[in-house]
Amino acid sequence: MNKLIHSVTVVTMDNKNSVFDGFVIVKDDKFHEVKQGTPSEYDKNQADEIINGSGKWLLPGLINSHGHLGSAFLRGAGDDIPLMTWLKTVMWPNEQKFTEEIVKNAASLAMVEMVKSGTTTFLDMYHLYMDKMAELAISSEMRTVLCRGMIGLCPDREQDEKIAESIQLFHDYNGVNKGKVTVALSPHAPYTCPPSFMIKVVDAAKKNGMWIHTHLAETKGEVDRHIAEHGVSPVKHMDDLGLFDVPSLIAHGVHLTVEDLHILCEKNVSVAHNPMSNLKLGSGIAPIPDMINKGITISLGTDSTASNNNLDLFEEMRFAALIHKGTHEDPTVTTSEMILRMATNWGAKALQLEKLGKIKAGYQADFILVNPNSAHLLPSDKKRVLSHLVYSAKGSDVTDSFVGGVHIMKDKELLSLDEEKIIFEAKAFQI
Amino acid sequence: MNKLIHSVTVVTMDNKNSVFDGFVIVKDDKFHEVKQGTPSEYDKNQADEIINGSGKWLLPGLINSHGHLGSAFLRGAGDDIPLMTWLKTVMWPNEQKFTEEIVKNAASLAMVEMVKSGTTTFLDMYHLYMDKMAELAISSEMRTVLCRGMIGLCPDREQDEKIAESIQLFHDYNGVNKGKVTVALSPHAPYTCPPSFMIKVVDAAKKNGMWIHTHLAETKGEVDRHIAEHGVSPVKHMDDLGLFDVPSLIAHGVHLTVEDLHILCEKNVSVAHNPMSNLKLGSGIAPIPDMINKGITISLGTDSTASNNNLDLFEEMRFAALIHKGTHEDPTVTTSEMILRMATNWGAKALQLEKLGKIKAGYQADFILVNPNSAHLLPSDKKRVLSHLVYSAKGSDVTDSFVGGVHIMKDKELLSLDEEKIIFEAKAFQI
Repeated sequence: MNKLIHSVTVVTMDNKNSVFDGFVIVKDDKFHEVKQGTPSEYDKNQADEIINGSGKWLLPGLINSHGHLGSAFLRGAGDDIPLMTWLKTVMWPNEQKFTEEIVKNAASLAMVEMVKSGTTTFLDMYHLYMDKMAELAISSEMRTVLCRGMIGLCPDREQDEKIAESIQLFHDYNGVNKGKVTVALSPHAPYTCPPSFMIKVVDAAKKNGMWIHTHLAETKGEVDRHIAEHGVSPVKHMDDLGLFDVPSLIAHGVHLTVEDLHILCEKNVSVAHNPMSNLKLGSGIAPIPDMINKGITISLGTDSTASNNNLDLFEEMRFAALIHKGTHEDPTVTTSEMILRMATNWGAKALQLEKLGKIKAGYQADFILVNPNSAHLLPSDKKRVLSHLVYSAKGSDVTDSFVGGVHIMKDKELLSLDEEKIIFEAKAFQI
Repeated sequence: MNKLIHSVTVVTMDNKNSVFDGFVIVKDDKFHEVKQGTPSEYDKNQADEIINGSGKWLLPGLINSHGHLGSAFLRGAGDDIPLMTWLKTVMWPNEQKFTEEIVKNAASLAMVEMVKSGTTTFLDMYHLYMDKMAELAISSEMRTVLCRGMIGLCPDREQDEKIAESIQLFHDYNGVNKGKVTVALSPHAPYTCPPSFMIKVVDAAKKNGMWIHTHLAETKGEVDRHIAEHGVSPVKHMDDLGLFDVPSLIAHGVHLTVEDLHILCEKNVSVAHNPMSNLKLGSGIAPIPDMINKGITISLGTDSTASNNNLDLFEEMRFAALIHKGTHEDPTVTTSEMILRMATNWGAKALQLEKLGKIKAGYQADFILVNPNSAHLLPSDKKRVLSHLVYSAKGSDVTDSFVGGVHIMKDKELLSLDEEKIIFEAKAFQI
C-alpha cells in the first residue's frame, strides 16, 4: 500500500534539519521516499492513494514520553493546593473508586486529546487495567509504550505479582500491531519502591530484555528525605542498585546535583521533561540546559491531565522553550530546533524506539500535517517554520495524523477513535 | 437594539465569582440583565435578536494590556538570540523600513489573531501611523487603548512634536466609537526618555487629563545601568519625577526592589505582566505573587509577536498561572480565579476602563463564547470551569465575540475584519 503526500513543506528534523517544499511516499508503515519538488508521473502511478497537502507543513508526529492516561477524568478536580493535600484529597480517594470502565473511558479521552493536538506516540504509566489499555492502544493505531506502574510498599508476594504482571504484559503485547506497542518496566519512584524491590525490578529487566521507566527527583522534599534516609541522592542510589545498567528513562529530574547529572550522562539515562506539571505542582524547574550541554537525551512529557491540565505537546514545547530562557535570563539556552527534537527524534530515542522521529526514508511513517493559513502563523517563510512550530503553533492547527502509515486523523476527523462516543462518556462521568 | 443570549454557562467574574447556567440580555452596548435559568416569554418578546448559546461558556472578553501591533510581521524573524543582537539585527533595521501599508497590514493581522483567540480589548503602544491605527481600531469594533510610543532621545523640538502628536491623537480619538477607543500618553521607557522629557510628559498628562503607560524595569541590565547613572532605581526615579502622580500602568516590572513594590502599591500603579515575552527575551520573571499580596493591580499583556510569538491570552494566562508556582515551589501562590481576573476586570482597571471585565448588568457587553465540547475541556462541571479556562482552554475554543454589544466574531467567522484579505496581505509580506 503506497501513499503519496505532495504539495507540503517538509520539516525533516533530520541532521541537516532541512525545511523544503516537496513530497513523501509512504510504503506500508515506513517512508519510502522524501523529496524536494513535485512527484513524477511514475511516482503518481505507483501510488494507491494520493493526498494533496495543500501547502501544509509535514513534520514528525509528536512524542509524549510521560503520562498517566487512566486518571484523565481528574482534570481540574483539584488545583492551586499543596501537593500532599492534592494527593490525599483528590488523587488517591478518587483513583480508589476507579472501575475498569472509568479507566478505559478516561484513557480514550486522553487519546482523543493527544491525536487532535499532534501526538502520535505516547508512554502510559498506570497501575490499573493495563491489558485493557493495550487493547485500546492497538485499536487507536497510536504508537504506545505501556508501563504497568508498580509501587513496592507492599509484602514480597504482592511485589512479585506486580512484576509478574508487568512481564506478562511484555510477553503479551511487546511488539504487537507491527511494533506500535512496546512494554517497559516501571517502578513508580524511589520513595515508593524500597531498594530490595528496585533490585528485583532490575533483575526482571535484565532477564526479560526490558527497559525501565521511573519517576525520579521530582520534588525537593522527596530528594531531601531520600538523602536523610539513605545517605545518598536518589539518582546515586538508583545507580548503586544497578537501575541504570538497564536502558532507562527518568521522569522529571528536577532536583539534581552535579554528580547526579554526571551519572545520568555516563549511564546514558534519558529524561522526560514535564515542564507544565513541574510548574503546576510547584515542584520546580529541571536543569534542562545543563543536561543538554552534557549530551543527555531530553524528551517531553505532559504528565497527566490531573497535574497539567492538558496533553497538548505544542504547549509543552512552548513551556520547555521559554522557561529556561527566563530563569537563566539568557535567550540562547534553548532553541526552537532543540525543542522540536525533544518532541520528535530525541523523544523516540528516550523511548528506545528506532527509526522514529524524522521524516526520512526507512523511518516509521509517523507524521502530522499542520495548517499554516492562520493569522498566528503568519508571516511565514521556510526560515520561520521551526520558530512558528515552537513559539506560535497550537494543537488545533494539526489537521492530519498518520502513525506507521495509517491515517488516524483526516481534516481533524478521527478515523480510529470514536470521538463522539468518547466525549459523550466523559460528559456522563461524575465525581 | 436588544440581544438575548440564552442556554449558556455564565462565568461572571463578579465579586462572588459565580458560574451558573443562565442567560444575558444586552441592550445597546451594555448588559441589561444577567440571570440564572431560562428567559421568560416577555424576555424573548423584547429581544431583537435571540442567540442560542448551546451550552457554551459565556465570559468577559479578554483584555490585553500591553502590545505593539505594528511590528506583528516580525514574528519569528529572530529568536533564541541575545536581546541587543535581536534589537540591532532584527527589530530596528526592519522597523526603519516599515511603510504605512506594512504597519496597517501587520496591525490588522494582529487584530485577527486577537479576536480569534478571545481578546476584545487591547492596548497598542507604537510609534508609527497611530492615527491610521485609530481608524483600524474603529472599523474593527474592538475596544482599544492607543499610545503613541515616544522615545525622548532627541532634540527638544522633536520631543515636543512627539508629545503634541500624542495630545492630538487624544483630542481626535479619545472616547470615539461609543467610548471604545481611548488614548494614553506613552513615554517608551526610562532608558530611552531622559528625566527632562519625563517631566514634560507628566506635565502634558496633567494638563490634558491623560494617563501614562510606559515600559519599566524589564531587564536587570537596564535597572543596574539606571542605578549607576541616577543613583536610584527606575521606579523610585519615575516616582520622584511625578510620573505616578498621574494614573499609570507599567509594562513588565520584572526587576523590582521591596521599596519599588511599596511605591507601586502606595501610588496605585498598575502592572502589565507579560510572562511569555519576559521569558523569551531572557528578561526574567516578575514578582507577581508579591505584587498580588500587596494589592497591586495586575493585568496581562502579550507584548508583540516579535517577542512572544503569539497574541493568545489563553496562553498568557497559562504561563502566568504556572510559572510563579514553579519558581516559588508553591502551587498556592496563584489561583485560576486570580489569573482570570488579570485577563478581565483587573485588566480593565489597569487600562482605566470603567464598568468592564464582568458579566454584570450595567457593564459593557464585551464577552466571548467558549465551546466546551472538546476532549481537552472534559470532564466538566460548574466547579471545574474556571480551572479549565485557565489550565486547559485554547484560543481556538472561542467561537463568538461581542464588544460593546457588537457581534464581531460568529461561529469563528470574523464580522468586522476581512480575515481572508488580511491573511493574503500577510502572506505577501517579505523581509
